[in-house]
Amino acid sequence: MPYEVRAVARVTGGRHEVADDGWAGVVAVIELAPDVPDEALIGLDAFSHVEVVALADRARDVPPAPWRRRPRDNPAWPDVGVFAQRNKDRPNRLLVSVARIVRVTERAIEVEGLDLVAGTPVLDLKPVVAWNAPRGTVRTPSWSDELGADYY
Amino acid sequence: MPYEVRAVARVTGGRHEVADDGWAGVVAVIELAPDVPDEALIGLDAFSHVEVVALADRARDVPPAPWRRRPRDNPAWPDVGVFAQRNKDRPNRLLVSVARIVRVTERAIEVEGLDLVAGTPVLDLKPVVAWNAPRGTVRTPSWSDELGADYY
Repeated sequence: MPYEVRAVARVTGGRHEVADDGWAGVVAVIELAPDVPDEALIGLDAFSHVEVVALADRARDVPPAPWRRRPRDNPAWPDVGVFAQRNKDRPNRLLVSVARIVRVTERAIEVEGLDLVAGTPVLDLKPVVAWNAPRGTVRTPSWSDELGADYY
Repeated sequence: MPYEVRAVARVTGGRHEVADDGWAGVVAVIELAPDVPDEALIGLDAFSHVEVVALADRARDVPPAPWRRRPRDNPAWPDVGVFAQRNKDRPNRLLVSVARIVRVTERAIEVEGLDLVAGTPVLDLKPVVAWNAPRGTVRTPSWSDELGADYY
């Protein structure tokens, strides 16, 4: 059964082309959609970081994109399932990004380090809270650490 | 413009009733939808934690739920916008949860500490990677810390 979702905000500024790496210094703005009232953002300025759920509207869904691939087609890395990677070509094309809040204005959030290109529809915004961090030690395979080394 | 999304998996086991607190010890299973092939999970067992994007199908969208409210209707906490809280009654009803992976089988993931009730449709699964954690110090308001104290 399909569900319908809609954009509550949109990314403006920042990068205009999709890139693999170097997102740390990128400053972008998340602007509320016209039908979302100002009050939806009240209190967000008390948090340092925001979690952004977005729809990668320029990416490919799965299928036609494959259920399994070698991340970035790098022959040194293993051929793993789409749920073992965070790449944008995925079922439902949903992205979850964390960015630092620079400033919250009446209808927008200025952010640093958001890995989403200008124009990307935003489906939800959530404050980053300490109690939602992974519980226990985080273990990751070496290919993922290598992939992430230059991401931010 | 609305977008269509579909369930790629579903929560089974775990809690059957929505609850505010005490999710740490809850063990649940995330089962792939029939149209998702086994290979989508390959390699996920190399990660300790999974990020689950779900649709809170028993929650209320906004509107009719309010754009702004006092979290848990607690008079001691401030009246803040929906994007400054993580409660389930929100536009698009999207939830992002992090759980510890106990075991990955052919078509399912056994997890600990997943704050989603049995039957909840899952829209995406992503591995938790160290490089996607918040960059810089995380700052949160005291009401949010108080709310989270007994959550896990």
